[in-house]
Amino acid sequence: MNTRPKLSFASDYLEGAHPRILQRLAETNMLKTAGYGLDEFSEAARQKIRAACQTPEADVFFFMGGTQTNAVMIGALLKPYQGVIAADSGHISLHEAGAIEAGGHKVLELPHRFGKINAETLSAYIQSYWQDENREHMVMPGLVYISQPTEYGTLYSLEELTKISEVCAAHHIALYLDGARLAYALASPANNVSLIDIARLCTTFYIGGTKCGTLFGEAAVIPQHNYIPHLFTIIKQRGALLAKGRIAGLQFDTLFSDNLYFEIGRSAIEATEIISARLQACGYKLAYPSPTNQLFIELEDARLKELSAQVEMSFWEKPDTSHTVVRLATSWATSADDVAALLKIMQAQH
Amino acid sequence: MNTRPKLSFASDYLEGAHPRILQRLAETNMLKTAGYGLDEFSEAARQKIRAACQTPEADVFFFMGGTQTNAVMIGALLKPYQGVIAADSGHISLHEAGAIEAGGHKVLELPHRFGKINAETLSAYIQSYWQDENREHMVMPGLVYISQPTEYGTLYSLEELTKISEVCAAHHIALYLDGARLAYALASPANNVSLIDIARLCTTFYIGGTKCGTLFGEAAVIPQHNYIPHLFTIIKQRGALLAKGRIAGLQFDTLFSDNLYFEIGRSAIEATEIISARLQACGYKLAYPSPTNQLFIELEDARLKELSAQVEMSFWEKPDTSHTVVRLATSWATSADDVAALLKIMQAQH
Amino acid sequence: MNTRPKLSFASDYLEGAHPRILQRLAETNMLKTAGYGLDEFSEAARQKIRAACQTPEADVFFFMGGTQTNAVMIGALLKPYQGVIAADSGHISLHEAGAIEAGGHKVLELPHRFGKINAETLSAYIQSYWQDENREHMVMPGLVYISQPTEYGTLYSLEELTKISEVCAAHHIALYLDGARLAYALASPANNVSLIDIARLCTTFYIGGTKCGTLFGEAAVIPQHNYIPHLFTIIKQRGALLAKGRIAGLQFDTLFSDNLYFEIGRSAIEATEIISARLQACGYKLAYPSPTNQLFIELEDARLKELSAQVEMSFWEKPDTSHTVVRLATSWATSADDVAALLKIMQAQH
Amino acid sequence: MNTRPKLSFASDYLEGAHPRILQRLAETNMLKTAGYGLDEFSEAARQKIRAACQTPEADVFFFMGGTQTNAVMIGALLKPYQGVIAADSGHISLHEAGAIEAGGHKVLELPHRFGKINAETLSAYIQSYWQDENREHMVMPGLVYISQPTEYGTLYSLEELTKISEVCAAHHIALYLDGARLAYALASPANNVSLIDIARLCTTFYIGGTKCGTLFGEAAVIPQHNYIPHLFTIIKQRGALLAKGRIAGLQFDTLFSDNLYFEIGRSAIEATEIISARLQACGYKLAYPSPTNQLFIELEDARLKELSAQVEMSFWEKPDTSHTVVRLATSWATSADDVAALLKIMQAQH
Repeated sequence: MNTRPKLSFASDYLEGAHPRILQRLAETNMLKTAGYGLDEFSEAARQKIRAACQTPEADVFFFMGGTQTNAVMIGALLKPYQGVIAADSGHISLHEAGAIEAGGHKVLELPHRFGKINAETLSAYIQSYWQDENREHMVMPGLVYISQPTEYGTLYSLEELTKISEVCAAHHIALYLDGARLAYALASPANNVSLIDIARLCTTFYIGGTKCGTLFGEAAVIPQHNYIPHLFTIIKQRGALLAKGRIAGLQFDTLFSDNLYFEIGRSAIEATEIISARLQACGYKLAYPSPTNQLFIELEDARLKELSAQVEMSFWEKPDTSHTVVRLATSWATSADDVAALLKIMQAQH
Repeated sequence: MNTRPKLSFASDYLEGAHPRILQRLAETNMLKTAGYGLDEFSEAARQKIRAACQTPEADVFFFMGGTQTNAVMIGALLKPYQGVIAADSGHISLHEAGAIEAGGHKVLELPHRFGKINAETLSAYIQSYWQDENREHMVMPGLVYISQPTEYGTLYSLEELTKISEVCAAHHIALYLDGARLAYALASPANNVSLIDIARLCTTFYIGGTKCGTLFGEAAVIPQHNYIPHLFTIIKQRGALLAKGRIAGLQFDTLFSDNLYFEIGRSAIEATEIISARLQACGYKLAYPSPTNQLFIELEDARLKELSAQVEMSFWEKPDTSHTVVRLATSWATSADDVAALLKIMQAQH
Repeated sequence: MNTRPKLSFASDYLEGAHPRILQRLAETNMLKTAGYGLDEFSEAARQKIRAACQTPEADVFFFMGGTQTNAVMIGALLKPYQGVIAADSGHISLHEAGAIEAGGHKVLELPHRFGKINAETLSAYIQSYWQDENREHMVMPGLVYISQPTEYGTLYSLEELTKISEVCAAHHIALYLDGARLAYALASPANNVSLIDIARLCTTFYIGGTKCGTLFGEAAVIPQHNYIPHLFTIIKQRGALLAKGRIAGLQFDTLFSDNLYFEIGRSAIEATEIISARLQACGYKLAYPSPTNQLFIELEDARLKELSAQVEMSFWEKPDTSHTVVRLATSWATSADDVAALLKIMQAQH
Repeated sequence: MNTRPKLSFASDYLEGAHPRILQRLAETNMLKTAGYGLDEFSEAARQKIRAACQTPEADVFFFMGGTQTNAVMIGALLKPYQGVIAADSGHISLHEAGAIEAGGHKVLELPHRFGKINAETLSAYIQSYWQDENREHMVMPGLVYISQPTEYGTLYSLEELTKISEVCAAHHIALYLDGARLAYALASPANNVSLIDIARLCTTFYIGGTKCGTLFGEAAVIPQHNYIPHLFTIIKQRGALLAKGRIAGLQFDTLFSDNLYFEIGRSAIEATEIISARLQACGYKLAYPSPTNQLFIELEDARLKELSAQVEMSFWEKPDTSHTVVRLATSWATSADDVAALLKIMQAQH
């Protein structure tokens, strides 16, 4: 059954799961385990994640997708009178259908530069709240949301992340990092922020699975044990508790065995680097400087139409009425053949 | 890796998925498909479900679990000033951690008999609301929730379901059926309600997957097309939209191929019937008359302790200080060896 | 302007405000004060309430009505995973249109006897939660709601209130008392619970104004200072912050000057006692034993129809198809002439 | 009792109510009326408002304050998947402590110019939503919020309001107008938008009372009857239903008798015009061109400190580290003596 006739770089969730994950699912299928994440596979995954983060006391919970993880965790981290600061380009600001607000909290939006906020703007914003004589009539900033890599494929440097973390600490505000594509950040040559750094600098973060090789699933990590009391019940209440929690746990156990999570990132980054270099060499314009697994290319609409007949890309935004920025994403599943086919098409078009 | 040393009948979600599902996941793994349920597998599953329900226009959405399905669908069906009527034993009343209320709606609880409400009590309740001169200060009943089979393993007969549906229709109230274990209802010899009956008599219902052979997943069916506008966005907002929607779709495509959903139910029911007959024959007392895949047995606490060392069962309730009702559940995965081992232990103990 | 042609005992909020309140509003009208309750009148009222409760550190906030007070305060007292225990006859259970649930929390309903719950049932309920092996899938009891007097006009004795408070303390659960008609409880000869007792035994309570002589307004008292951080902002967020907070403050300052709150209660209770004695003497049946300002009388529907042409009463409930329980309420505004006119009508009808 | 020793122009809600309102409250105090707005005074007020708006079928509901009105009405107008577009300076965006989000909806913020949005930006924003291929993952614009006058004291012209209304109509989006200070807009010589225009061009709006002469209260007007079904119950659920609804109704009945609402506006505007002309004449800098009852003056912080000792003004914002914008508000209660005293102080300081 050929479900999609043409080449696609539309996203990093086009295929099923990394083959090793399917293999483990098959091997363990008939074992009987406890439900709701209390099983041995989930516990093994938690231990491996704790080890990788150097956070032996961390609470780790598995979710089914990124919006769910963000909505439940951010809701659980905020007090009723607080909101979450995020880039106005952030996934929670734009592309989660108002999930944070549906949970009762305002997203306090700061301007972004290629998907990133900076520590100075953040600090000024928080200070302006505390200096405002009407602040008791306003939403108190209670949490900062960032993503690594960002929705524009860009990366916070260790220096930038450290500064943001320091601003948060100075104001007793929690820091939350959305790692939907974290594997691709960790594997980027441009990256100098390790998983250990993230665990040290953030109050909570999640390690993305859905876009990094699993059928589904994200692992939320809270380095400080019991930082959010009764989180299990909160997760249940939000409909986010998987009955067969082992399915999520086993996938993360696999990702964190034999360095798989990092290998998945590496192979995608290598594909992107080849594509990026070749496309720029033949004159394509990158819309943003993204060093991870997403390339954003600005195309004339006429050319876009021609290319779209041969390769699927995803719409990103329209900078003006005659151009469109499209996204090309690689993943763990991108093959050398895919790359070659793409380059052949793109070069012919140029 | 032996994850659970002893025999377990604790629930119907102890194992992974029916082997045919794993096989299909493997076969289709590297195909590229659209996300968010817009793929070919999900569409095929929808078509098969529509055919099985004889509802060619139905909207079908896939969710990741029962609490999520209930919370999103019930929330979407209710107006802000309405609540949902349910048995006080209902899953939404007791065991979903307040998910309906977290969505802003009251569960209007009616007394149950072995998990069921009856049409007369329901009708009287709704009429008392409409006759109350203070009703504008009260929660309006907007939906009726039932489960088939119920949390006690019991079944609504076609006559009972028809009457409840008529009461709902007479008061312009929607009817929602939770089919978490629907396969086991459909396969029970005591059952006379078909999937087609359910689709004809209910406003919305869901066909359970998690407890009936999938890794995860439930299929919500809304026979009347576009009955809930913008449901896709509502699902996204509640964090319930699966990026790789195909994984859920493919599983339901498999369940509804070659009569698999009905076979899964049948094998579990056969196992239960054997266990039930034998246990009663040697003097065990059934707490409720449940003709599906769950048996509820009342045990003295001392005997429970002895049995628990050899076979895992699940706690249900304590009718008094010295007895406990426990649940034994069979499933698609229950083998003849499991049944024999259970009976050997139980008979020896008696 | 005669806005209502016939005698009315339909409720205790039929008139405007006690004349002393109107006088104070007129006297202070053109003074300029700070907004949002930061004014001198509100502060004076808070001091008088603290003194009357013997809670020198108490936080006191003024609200505009009972449902608003309950919704905001109960919402602020509960964690997201908690619910509030209440009698199934409680105002929050039945007559606030689902306000608690709209705020995200379940009302955990216990059976009532004439509007009251008892400590034993309460204790058993809380213990059953903690003994339930599935409790992490359930709503945790986080607060107990009672009303004094109850919706049935009955009173908790000091012994009963003390026991309930002890059960709450034993389980680290907060206790909230709805005092919408508290003036009438405090003035009842049957009452032995003082304001000081309430302040000592409850985590939070409110002193009712709307039904006890003000134009509007309730005073929420939290004996322990800063027990709910940022409550001012929570109140603002819920739309419950009065810009001209002085209007509420001044009314409570007046109620707590010269013993007015207690006098208001006393005059209403005296009227009720006369009515109750006379009606019983000529054969009317009281539906419940209510020693405060509400009388509940069971009438044949035919007689109710005749009486309704001459005196307005309020519908309470229908115990069977041919009888109705109606409520007669007195208040600070009930005159001796009103009482005489009522008795003349009722005696003639009997 | 001198509650505030110095001159104050801090806001337009410093005093109680217009004397005619207090007089009516006293005259009608002992009349018995139905509760919850079903009384004769409320009905009379509704009729007068309908007549003034030329909307004979309008639904009119009275609320207790602006944030409450906005939260309840905007919540009732939106579907769960929709948000409300507003200026980023709008009261709902900034100064209502996240009340809209607490109700589950996102405020979609547009940049403002002196508190106003314009039809072109609005149209472009809505179109960009409908052209975005990911819009089903985004919050749908469902309502536009504007204020007249704005938070900066500025006014929409009839042309501007008409264009905004046309954009809304073209996209089937509702238009909501916050008239907290509407009396001061209607009375401004710069204004060309009548109450009738507002009622014709908006889906819903409210006529402010709290800042325009009442003790409290706002009148929400929905020109199309039953546009929001069961709004009474929604209001109750949000804790916004006043038991003695007559108190709100009577105040609006008074405001809309003998042209009082318009006179209240006129007297304040006249005071502002005198102050504005004189202050500008002696060199004060107005921060924004506001033709209503609020003046915004930019002061050096040193001068602000000196002035603050003699006259109370309210903090607005800090344009830089050494200057502050303060607000001077007049109202129905501002006397000629107040104006003279203010000018004497301000001129001496300059």
